[in-house]
Amino acid sequence: MVNKNQLRFTFHVLVFLFFISLSLNVFSAPDEGMWTFDNPPTKQLQEKYGFTPTQEWLDHVRLASVRFMDGGSGSFVSPNGLVLTNHHVAMGQLQKISTAEKNYVAEGFYAATLDQEIKSPDLEVNVLVSMEDVTKEVMKAIKTGMSDAEALKARRAAIAEIENKSLKKTGLRSNVVSLYHGGEYWLYRYKKYTDVRLVMAPERQAAYFGGDFDNFTYPRYDLDFAFFRVYENDKPVKSKHYLKWNAKGVEENELVFVSGNPGSTDRLYTYARLEFQRDFQYPMILKYIDKRLEILREYAQKGEEQARRALGQIFGLENGKKALTGELNGLLDEDLMAKRKKDENDFRKLVANNPEWQEKYGNAWDIIAKTIDQNKKVARERFYRRLIGSRMAGNATTIVRYVVEVKKKDANRLPGFHDSELAELKFNLFSPAPIYKDLEEALLVGNLKMSIEELGSNDEFIKIVLKGQSPEKVVKDLISGTKLDDPGFRKSLIDGGEKAVNESDDPLIVLARELDPMMREREKWNRENIESVLTAASEKIAKARFAVYGKTTYPDATFTLRLSYGAVKGYPMNGTKAPFKTTLYGLYDRSLSFNQEGDFVLPQRFWDRKDKLDLSTPVNFVSTNDIIGGNSGSPVINNNAELVGLIFDGNIESLSGRFMFDKEKNRAVSVHSAYIIEAMRKLYDAGKLADEVVGEIVR
Amino acid sequence: MVNKNQLRFTFHVLVFLFFISLSLNVFSAPDEGMWTFDNPPTKQLQEKYGFTPTQEWLDHVRLASVRFMDGGSGSFVSPNGLVLTNHHVAMGQLQKISTAEKNYVAEGFYAATLDQEIKSPDLEVNVLVSMEDVTKEVMKAIKTGMSDAEALKARRAAIAEIENKSLKKTGLRSNVVSLYHGGEYWLYRYKKYTDVRLVMAPERQAAYFGGDFDNFTYPRYDLDFAFFRVYENDKPVKSKHYLKWNAKGVEENELVFVSGNPGSTDRLYTYARLEFQRDFQYPMILKYIDKRLEILREYAQKGEEQARRALGQIFGLENGKKALTGELNGLLDEDLMAKRKKDENDFRKLVANNPEWQEKYGNAWDIIAKTIDQNKKVARERFYRRLIGSRMAGNATTIVRYVVEVKKKDANRLPGFHDSELAELKFNLFSPAPIYKDLEEALLVGNLKMSIEELGSNDEFIKIVLKGQSPEKVVKDLISGTKLDDPGFRKSLIDGGEKAVNESDDPLIVLARELDPMMREREKWNRENIESVLTAASEKIAKARFAVYGKTTYPDATFTLRLSYGAVKGYPMNGTKAPFKTTLYGLYDRSLSFNQEGDFVLPQRFWDRKDKLDLSTPVNFVSTNDIIGGNSGSPVINNNAELVGLIFDGNIESLSGRFMFDKEKNRAVSVHSAYIIEAMRKLYDAGKLADEVVGEIVR
Repeated sequence: MVNKNQLRFTFHVLVFLFFISLSLNVFSAPDEGMWTFDNPPTKQLQEKYGFTPTQEWLDHVRLASVRFMDGGSGSFVSPNGLVLTNHHVAMGQLQKISTAEKNYVAEGFYAATLDQEIKSPDLEVNVLVSMEDVTKEVMKAIKTGMSDAEALKARRAAIAEIENKSLKKTGLRSNVVSLYHGGEYWLYRYKKYTDVRLVMAPERQAAYFGGDFDNFTYPRYDLDFAFFRVYENDKPVKSKHYLKWNAKGVEENELVFVSGNPGSTDRLYTYARLEFQRDFQYPMILKYIDKRLEILREYAQKGEEQARRALGQIFGLENGKKALTGELNGLLDEDLMAKRKKDENDFRKLVANNPEWQEKYGNAWDIIAKTIDQNKKVARERFYRRLIGSRMAGNATTIVRYVVEVKKKDANRLPGFHDSELAELKFNLFSPAPIYKDLEEALLVGNLKMSIEELGSNDEFIKIVLKGQSPEKVVKDLISGTKLDDPGFRKSLIDGGEKAVNESDDPLIVLARELDPMMREREKWNRENIESVLTAASEKIAKARFAVYGKTTYPDATFTLRLSYGAVKGYPMNGTKAPFKTTLYGLYDRSLSFNQEGDFVLPQRFWDRKDKLDLSTPVNFVSTNDIIGGNSGSPVINNNAELVGLIFDGNIESLSGRFMFDKEKNRAVSVHSAYIIEAMRKLYDAGKLADEVVGEIVR
Repeated sequence: MVNKNQLRFTFHVLVFLFFISLSLNVFSAPDEGMWTFDNPPTKQLQEKYGFTPTQEWLDHVRLASVRFMDGGSGSFVSPNGLVLTNHHVAMGQLQKISTAEKNYVAEGFYAATLDQEIKSPDLEVNVLVSMEDVTKEVMKAIKTGMSDAEALKARRAAIAEIENKSLKKTGLRSNVVSLYHGGEYWLYRYKKYTDVRLVMAPERQAAYFGGDFDNFTYPRYDLDFAFFRVYENDKPVKSKHYLKWNAKGVEENELVFVSGNPGSTDRLYTYARLEFQRDFQYPMILKYIDKRLEILREYAQKGEEQARRALGQIFGLENGKKALTGELNGLLDEDLMAKRKKDENDFRKLVANNPEWQEKYGNAWDIIAKTIDQNKKVARERFYRRLIGSRMAGNATTIVRYVVEVKKKDANRLPGFHDSELAELKFNLFSPAPIYKDLEEALLVGNLKMSIEELGSNDEFIKIVLKGQSPEKVVKDLISGTKLDDPGFRKSLIDGGEKAVNESDDPLIVLARELDPMMREREKWNRENIESVLTAASEKIAKARFAVYGKTTYPDATFTLRLSYGAVKGYPMNGTKAPFKTTLYGLYDRSLSFNQEGDFVLPQRFWDRKDKLDLSTPVNFVSTNDIIGGNSGSPVINNNAELVGLIFDGNIESLSGRFMFDKEKNRAVSVHSAYIIEAMRKLYDAGKLADEVVGEIVR
């Protein structure tokens, strides 16, 4: 006998199986996904490529992978702590060690011996040594009946406690990571290194050949690499887990992996959040970037040294602008949005069809939509109520808050001030990297004017900052009066504690003190009315997703270690096809085809030594790997875990990947391993370093 | 005093001036237009480039320009009748002179001496020696009160008479051309040459490097050139007007002109016609092309010789498919269509605002829309009621009609059979070019099956052809039984007149006789109900256009000589920019980046002789010139009328140019003059020919 309930159950099972098969299809056919190392896509790999990585393989790759805390990835490539990353990941440190006299960005750098290697002022790199699922521990902090705000606080406290305990016990950097938007919490422990020395970087002209034009595009011809060496106790670390260099590189259609730290994606965002991004967030940020670029370019016009100082920021903003524009184009793509809408509707229908799920999770989407609507009203204020563009102003706020926060019980502190976070905070705060007061002044004035324009001069924040004076006058006084460009002064305030900070008459500290109560109030409101509500609702959706689909998918990117797989493969482009690789012939072609002008100028050594080069050497290649910003510098490895390439970009079609993977045209762009060796040996007289990476000598 | 009428007039003048200024803007800002030589865009040239061509300059360029009657353009480049065109324009003749033993398409050809030059079997080339406005003469044939059908007949008769008179008087090929869709009629007189000999062609692999993939795209690396020599009385003609070769070629942003014969554009079509194209015509043709390609590829699979025989058609269809797909994408582009709709609405409003214009022209758009609607019902029938794919079947119809038509008064003949057209008809009909019966059989069977599918087996045409038998059987009998592959047999039927044709038992002639009455009936209906109505209404619109805008624009392309101007300039492409030129470095890059496979294989000589080449030699370049199919082989000249390049393609963005010029991204793609010389001297041992074109020797 078949009763009604049973029928309904059967229907559910059928619908469920139908969607599972759909979802497997979606996630196995394309080479999609940024997979955590605890949940690698073994089924897809086996089915599509007939390859299953062993646990040993996975552990080795993970331990050879390096995270650059200033935003990038890398890998050990010799047993002596040598780390490969991108030139554009090294760029920040190259800027910081350069001076008016010695411009390592423009000229490149090579340390032929260990003693010539230059210490980075404030570079921290991490190796992920363990991962532990702490979802239950975090979750048990949330008691029934708690408001969203109370839950957020409780969750934060629990996380801080887990992190602290781990730090004390292991001495390792310990971070609890929220995956699947709260679906899981994992304790990631990192071996952390802060003595990281520059070994080699080519000139930017070779690394970033084609400039902003060619950025995020392909075919491409960039030598975007740099080498650092990791030290401990003033000696190169013995990096047991390092990637063997395969100078033959890749063949067409070959299976390759990328192990790195994708920054963030929004693939699990609800449709309402995508609309907010499309209609509000992106236009706002892009407007701001344009303004900031305008200020920087005006400043850079003033002279060669000013141009040098502004270069890093200009690059970062141009890069961001191009990426965000591509992402916004994804959001403006009606097909993409329709697909996202459909996916969400299908998902919600499956939830709704199960009364228990509907009861527990069903209202989450509407809550998010409503909260996002509220957020619109305050997001612009939140963005513009900051002293944008000045490291010193940021430091002032940090110092003013630090001395108060550290006195509190760990659980009650503001985010960023938990015991487990203080080492990083101080490492950044006390960085000896140079601060250019004239540049900060230019930025602060420009951005302050923009804030006035956006908020109006009657805004509380603006009134506190200006006190009736002109932005120019206020900023001039702040910047000329402050001593916060001196790391020693910053340290003295931290060491002096609340008393020293309260008595300080440093104008930026004074202003930070004045702003702090209002800012705290605003942030609190935001946590209680926006963040906590979104967190709770997102967590519901994450649980619903696990309930409906199981753990068949990967979480959105979180700047933690992920494995992506794919094949080396060209793609349809602009009416024809883009090849899977480019060669040195193409580099010379592109330079000459633009009359060797602007961003297409090649360093003189490329012409002087052209005849020494094998012009058929592969330069860059593309693969179907699923990556995003933060993956820069990631190693590309073959199934023997040998290094065959170096991720440095995604193609223009991959930019909408923040919201949805384009299985036909998404491509990751890498420097070919052969090009790096060819260049080191024949262009940069760095044969000794080349020998180290290909394994012929040990230092 | 200002009376009402005067007010209205003033308003009209204002509106008129407003639109004139708009329209000047539209047509002068971008480098748009395929201008007739009687109406060059001197104002735009002077304003934008500060250059005004003299009448002498215009005459010289016109007289150095050559039209290839099998569909292309070219130019004299030496005083001894040497003509430069594209390899792909020469392709048809190369196919026709090739055999299983000697494949000039694959191997290329070079005649080191005059006596080695090979006569083309059926190539006619033309030089436009004069142009005469005969609008009034044509128009006066149309009497008040004539129906559209009568008017069409009268117009045709008048045109035939003008052409005949001119032919008899001057001995020149005389064609009356309808410009602006009937807005003007011009008598074009051509010096016609039919002894045209092949001098040189590279291997197709170099000429068409990148194949169908790279076709209609850029950056590009093609050596798409060929040389013919024009003979008269078995001697090279003395071509006084020839273009001096400038082997330095072009610089970025340089002003260049293209003089050639664009085939057709639909920029002045009404919106209703565009919709018909989009929804009906393009899908139908693309479906047909796919089927025909399928048949040809199956045939080509059978062996090397079959592949050789089918190559020309496959190339033509692939080329057509890519072009039509690009054009259809233009029609599917909502912005483009909205712009066309708006332009039409603006135009109609201006007409409607003037009672006289409205009375004379106002109903034309609705008439066209209604007629197009009727056309939909018969267009498919018209297309599929043909024995498609067989030159012999086409010849049979021509022969059957010829013997009847030539007995009539010239004015009463079918189009194509007027005295002035007979020389061309016979030149084609008696062509000694080989006919491959097995290929014709394969195509005829396949296409006949498609006709059955489209029309149904009860269709009148199908019934006459099949007579209850299978398509395979019918076609086998037709092809094996016919002797029409023999030019002598074709000639004997023409010479034997109506009697010989009526008594012939050649199965294709018999079938053509059976089909003729029905086909004539259908064609008559079509002329009377579709063509004549569209012609009359289009003429009205043309007159309205002149009334509203004056002659500020250029006519749609008509495969007659046009001048286009533009600048050598890259363009935004796929997130970056495409360079204005490419170099030989890029050619080697593209070949290697595809592992030298498939369409990216370079002829061996390119590898053997690579070190002799200057790899920085420019290969191809792009300019903003407005061109379309038929312009292939056109010379690109600088303002000294020196040859700097050779048109061979448009970029993918230019394909929607059939309907609207894309001022930002439309680019014409040319072979650089330097590459042709470099290749002739260093790759093809054709230094003597290179000397002739650069002017160092005279044969």
